Amino acid sequence: MTDSILKDGERIDQLFSSDVKIIQNKEVFSYSVDSVLLSRFPKIPSKGLIVDLCSGNGAVGLFASHKTKAKIVEIELQERLADMAQRSILLNQLGKQVTMVNDDLKHLLQYVQRSSVDLIFCNPPYFKSTQTSKKNLSPHYLLARHEIATNFDEICAISQQALKTKGRLALVHRPDRFLDIIDTLRHYKLAPKRIQFVYPKPAKVANMLLIEAIKDGSQEGMKILPPLIIHQNNGDYTDAIYTIYYGEKCD
Amino acid sequence: MTDSILKDGERIDQLFSSDVKIIQNKEVFSYSVDSVLLSRFPKIPSKGLIVDLCSGNGAVGLFASHKTKAKIVEIELQERLADMAQRSILLNQLGKQVTMVNDDLKHLLQYVQRSSVDLIFCNPPYFKSTQTSKKNLSPHYLLARHEIATNFDEICAISQQALKTKGRLALVHRPDRFLDIIDTLRHYKLAPKRIQFVYPKPAKVANMLLIEAIKDGSQEGMKILPPLIIHQNNGDYTDAIYTIYYGEKCD
Repeated sequence: MTDSILKDGERIDQLFSSDVKIIQNKEVFSYSVDSVLLSRFPKIPSKGLIVDLCSGNGAVGLFASHKTKAKIVEIELQERLADMAQRSILLNQLGKQVTMVNDDLKHLLQYVQRSSVDLIFCNPPYFKSTQTSKKNLSPHYLLARHEIATNFDEICAISQQALKTKGRLALVHRPDRFLDIIDTLRHYKLAPKRIQFVYPKPAKVANMLLIEAIKDGSQEGMKILPPLIIHQNNGDYTDAIYTIYYGEKCD
Repeated sequence: MTDSILKDGERIDQLFSSDVKIIQNKEVFSYSVDSVLLSRFPKIPSKGLIVDLCSGNGAVGLFASHKTKAKIVEIELQERLADMAQRSILLNQLGKQVTMVNDDLKHLLQYVQRSSVDLIFCNPPYFKSTQTSKKNLSPHYLLARHEIATNFDEICAISQQALKTKGRLALVHRPDRFLDIIDTLRHYKLAPKRIQFVYPKPAKVANMLLIEAIKDGSQEGMKILPPLIIHQNNGDYTDAIYTIYYGEKCD
């Protein structure tokens, strides 16, 4: 049955710590460690409504699904990626909980009510459209990684409209955009509350950041969470990352 | 000779990794790990002019002195602390390199020329004057820790005036003031470039941050440096901190 759900070049990857299976295609789009970390970063509401913006092949929302009874709406502009996500929803028998919307995120309020969302995930395009160095990519990766079809300002604007008061926006992004990120969040009255920096190895500069902002929250009481380090100096995963991928070690 | 340089209740502490001796008085003022970390955080210019604002008993400037031939001006409002610093300068025979000024930092330009300083250190009062919870302190600690005699805005204003173009301000502060800090720095055209978060233990939230800003620098290219963790889970210093205090381990 799983074979027939796959199209050319696709495979099924499983996140063993959650049993969720994701349809991937290396040529088109594959989720990466950033999506895994984002899916477990915020406190997930036990019920209500969750949105996954820029959902790609649906990994973040699907990883989060087993921790909640909340309805999850995934929205992705690219038809090819949305189609993979739709089939992953079926593969995991999550059709009653998770809905895939193939549209531009600026039309989100056609699918969810204004001020109705408890939590928004977003793994957005990281690079400004003017950053051309890595534009020798497939059109799918290009749209997923560069601010061509959307940008951080638009993501914050639609999040402010869709979230409940005190609802939360959870993001993964790059540290070199950090000042821009916190300025734009605050411009849209999304108060940064929890920030975690992610480092590829213990003695390296951060290459990722996770940030949670609260709609109409106060500016006080921001926390910098413990550092998250991906690899040990010998290249193996750290215990923290191993557990995230495979569950607790049985020593 | 060293005994006669001490007043009642004072002792001499030595930072073994640098051979610098500091006169301390637990009742009045003692430097802490924040001063040690600040002194080694920025790239120290080999010559030129360095200023240590809010210098307390002079620890930061004295720790930095052995890495540079630059002149160092320490400025401290509290006479009792400035007096300890002055005697520490003599004790370390650094009178030709290090000058102690007992004055309000807002008068800094009476002692150094405008736009002449290569590097400013500042370990400022961390708490807003309205944060009254810890005000059951000696008057010396009260002024050193709370924004009563100065505040972060004033520190940035005077730093902008005193620094050369591309001169650097190196600070230690608290993560819960982080948004305020980067907003105020940028208001005074001090661009944050290097940030390091300090964690008391591996799985704890950050309780300190080090930040280096460049006068009239661009907003691009900010780096989050590797995490600095003070204690291992068993309470011992991490290797990084041990080395900072005692020099390299001889295993």
